Amino acid sequence: MQAALDELRQAFAGRLLVDEADKAPFLTDWRRKWTGQALAVAQPDMAADVAAVVRWCARHRVAVVPQGGNTGLSGGATPDTSGRTLVLSLTRLNKVRAIDTINNTLTVEAGVTLQQVQDAAREAGRLFPLSLAAEGTCTIGGNLASNAGGVQVLRYGNARELCLGLEAVTAQGELWDGLRGLRKDNTGYDLRDLFIGSEGTLGVITAAVLKLHPLPAAQVAAFVAVPDPAAALQLLQLAQSRLGAGLTAFELMSDTCIALVEKHVDSARLPLAERSPWYVLLEVSDNVDEAHASAAIEGLLEAALEQELATDAALSATLAQFQALWALREDISESQGAEGRTIKHDIALPISRIADFIANMGEEIAQRWPGERLVVFGHLGDGNLHYNLSPAADRLGPEHRAAFEALEKPINQCVHDAVVAHGGSISAEHGLGVLRRDESARHKSAVELRLMQAVKAALDPHGLMNPGKLLPPNQEHSE
Amino acid sequence: MQAALDELRQAFAGRLLVDEADKAPFLTDWRRKWTGQALAVAQPDMAADVAAVVRWCARHRVAVVPQGGNTGLSGGATPDTSGRTLVLSLTRLNKVRAIDTINNTLTVEAGVTLQQVQDAAREAGRLFPLSLAAEGTCTIGGNLASNAGGVQVLRYGNARELCLGLEAVTAQGELWDGLRGLRKDNTGYDLRDLFIGSEGTLGVITAAVLKLHPLPAAQVAAFVAVPDPAAALQLLQLAQSRLGAGLTAFELMSDTCIALVEKHVDSARLPLAERSPWYVLLEVSDNVDEAHASAAIEGLLEAALEQELATDAALSATLAQFQALWALREDISESQGAEGRTIKHDIALPISRIADFIANMGEEIAQRWPGERLVVFGHLGDGNLHYNLSPAADRLGPEHRAAFEALEKPINQCVHDAVVAHGGSISAEHGLGVLRRDESARHKSAVELRLMQAVKAALDPHGLMNPGKLLPPNQEHSE
Repeated sequence: MQAALDELRQAFAGRLLVDEADKAPFLTDWRRKWTGQALAVAQPDMAADVAAVVRWCARHRVAVVPQGGNTGLSGGATPDTSGRTLVLSLTRLNKVRAIDTINNTLTVEAGVTLQQVQDAAREAGRLFPLSLAAEGTCTIGGNLASNAGGVQVLRYGNARELCLGLEAVTAQGELWDGLRGLRKDNTGYDLRDLFIGSEGTLGVITAAVLKLHPLPAAQVAAFVAVPDPAAALQLLQLAQSRLGAGLTAFELMSDTCIALVEKHVDSARLPLAERSPWYVLLEVSDNVDEAHASAAIEGLLEAALEQELATDAALSATLAQFQALWALREDISESQGAEGRTIKHDIALPISRIADFIANMGEEIAQRWPGERLVVFGHLGDGNLHYNLSPAADRLGPEHRAAFEALEKPINQCVHDAVVAHGGSISAEHGLGVLRRDESARHKSAVELRLMQAVKAALDPHGLMNPGKLLPPNQEHSE
Repeated sequence: MQAALDELRQAFAGRLLVDEADKAPFLTDWRRKWTGQALAVAQPDMAADVAAVVRWCARHRVAVVPQGGNTGLSGGATPDTSGRTLVLSLTRLNKVRAIDTINNTLTVEAGVTLQQVQDAAREAGRLFPLSLAAEGTCTIGGNLASNAGGVQVLRYGNARELCLGLEAVTAQGELWDGLRGLRKDNTGYDLRDLFIGSEGTLGVITAAVLKLHPLPAAQVAAFVAVPDPAAALQLLQLAQSRLGAGLTAFELMSDTCIALVEKHVDSARLPLAERSPWYVLLEVSDNVDEAHASAAIEGLLEAALEQELATDAALSATLAQFQALWALREDISESQGAEGRTIKHDIALPISRIADFIANMGEEIAQRWPGERLVVFGHLGDGNLHYNLSPAADRLGPEHRAAFEALEKPINQCVHDAVVAHGGSISAEHGLGVLRRDESARHKSAVELRLMQAVKAALDPHGLMNPGKLLPPNQEHSE
């Protein structure tokens, strides 16, 4: 292999890491759930060199694991333990190639972080609305490869809807230039959307044309106490009919979530006089000004209080208050982590099924696993819940750890079966990677699996692109 | 073949047309540009029977031409002249299967007309925003197979963006149930978007879950005189920053277009005191009421007049006026047809390139083909122009017809080469069919063609799904 690695070293500009210490940061995911091995880590500086690396992989039948900011939650960017794969890190493809404020597009390389994308847009007086917790580290290439979601999907869509064109390297090491900045283009199969969300298993995204939106003139948030998820859903409907596209976020969280944030984050406090079993955080973006936005949200809340969909509400009047309200929502995940072990689900449901799902699932879990705490929050406007569990408050000690971990598989199965029975998805925004790969295959129809395998075999006939991710490995070549 | 047809007759419920007179309406496209032959026309009543028909086709290696309302503009639904193909008409799959006003989704079968979809949504107090001239006849299955566009793409997206889930029959005659009504679902390859826009060459769409929007409380239109396309572009930017998602249409048209409408439509008249070389029709949708919408649009127009982006404007104050302003735009295509032969282009450009394109292309055409009239209009907000030509006013007689028709190919080539040089698309919303198939292949990179051929060969290995459409036939099996 040394001769082949020497050939690779000659084949492209950029870094090739072969020392164990240099490779280590690329071999473990950031939650430290998976650790693999790799022949080497290649870090090319430009798309043509990504193609050169992939051509070397094709020639030597070496599998390649594309990696962005390495912040994925499903193990999609971590190599397996064989030590025979190459990690292809895209972080050095970090140029903003072009910005066009008339066409409202931004062309960036795959390794640019999401925050850098947001900043580049804002500097040009535009909004790039994709926003998620890892934005300082995650890369736009990874966001697209996993079709990332986040908090403003309700208004602006997932990563998929924010991308007009792609540049990608095929499994054969060819560079495909699909960097079109067009709103309409019906000249053949939608290769863009095929690569988006394919988790690096069909090719490697090297650049993208992103869609920008006008910067809103003002944003106001409200933290609203609601009696239950059913009322939250009615509030969502009321908000959509009154605010239309002005409603840019609608998040649901239980009181358990907020109590965890208050426990683990010093500055956090409930902005309402009394506790409620459930809360909604909603955000309005406005083209006019702050007063206009506040008037819209006040009108909505008045109607909601009158219709008894809400029992109390706090409105942000300053940027600091806006950020403090959002922090209550954004700090849930870390606060839950600080509490101890977690069992997580990233599920989507038809919005009309959510209240029933929460009620029935809550009962079933309370019955089968009494005492374990449900930590339920998420993007209600998108039908996306992070339906999580923490150990019972009196079982946080290390002596209870193994018992709680043993619950992960049966609870996952129980939740996912109910989700599928309700017409939902077991991975709303985190992708399959290795974490949900087999569980997903268990729920897909034979027709759908066969179609996915046929696409995989067509574009990656030797199975070298991120093997074992998204599709079970033993089925990859069955076509 | 008679025995095989008898077998087919037994294989499914629904109609099987074999008489020439019965088949005839399905063998010619509605513009009467293409006429083909077919073994028979099958009209199943349900998805399971579509699958049965396709299984028969697979068994007998008979090619299948899926057809919806037969209103396509690119010959994508017309069989070839071999007489060996089967036309599969979807119009009898005409059930609205479900409506969910909380999830904001509508599940319909492929043969439901676009207008029936709009009506079903409106009856439930929701908006299905896809809208185009053929909506009374075209089917939602055809709209999705060709990823139709229309007038509100600026705000709501193409057919692609309005579809959450699909049911389709594969080339093997299996029924794929992908009817998910979810905003987020990252569990594998995006098969939905692969079938959408594939023009029946990968499988047959039998049903879809469509995304509904809140019905706006009010809509107001303005007909605005602008000095030139560059000013129209600046007006677009101003409108987007002031109105955000409230701006639901932004159409550009030249004075030549309006003059043709006035000539051929009795009721049509310019709503302004003086003519202008160019006009913009813009539409505002509002969640509050008519007065709120009018105030927003008046504020915009005041600023536009002040900045000299507009020279005059007429605002709709009643529904009749709203419809009359829209009729000026919507009647262009038919008025141009009434004028005589036409040469048409359905192009998209980065919005920032449109003014230059119109200026330069206009000069080149005036120089190379003096006298021929440019009839330029389209969805400026989406970068989509219908860049058409009519014969010079003194060359409308039948004796000039052949000479004008001979210009079609060189003018197409001239326009399309310039479009591609500007990073544009030669088929923005009409698809490739047979009309633009070879022209598109000429402009695609080898990598992109190879990727498309690989997908085609993977999902339709025997090349039986609408062969000769979208991809050149001789390349279909080269993979």
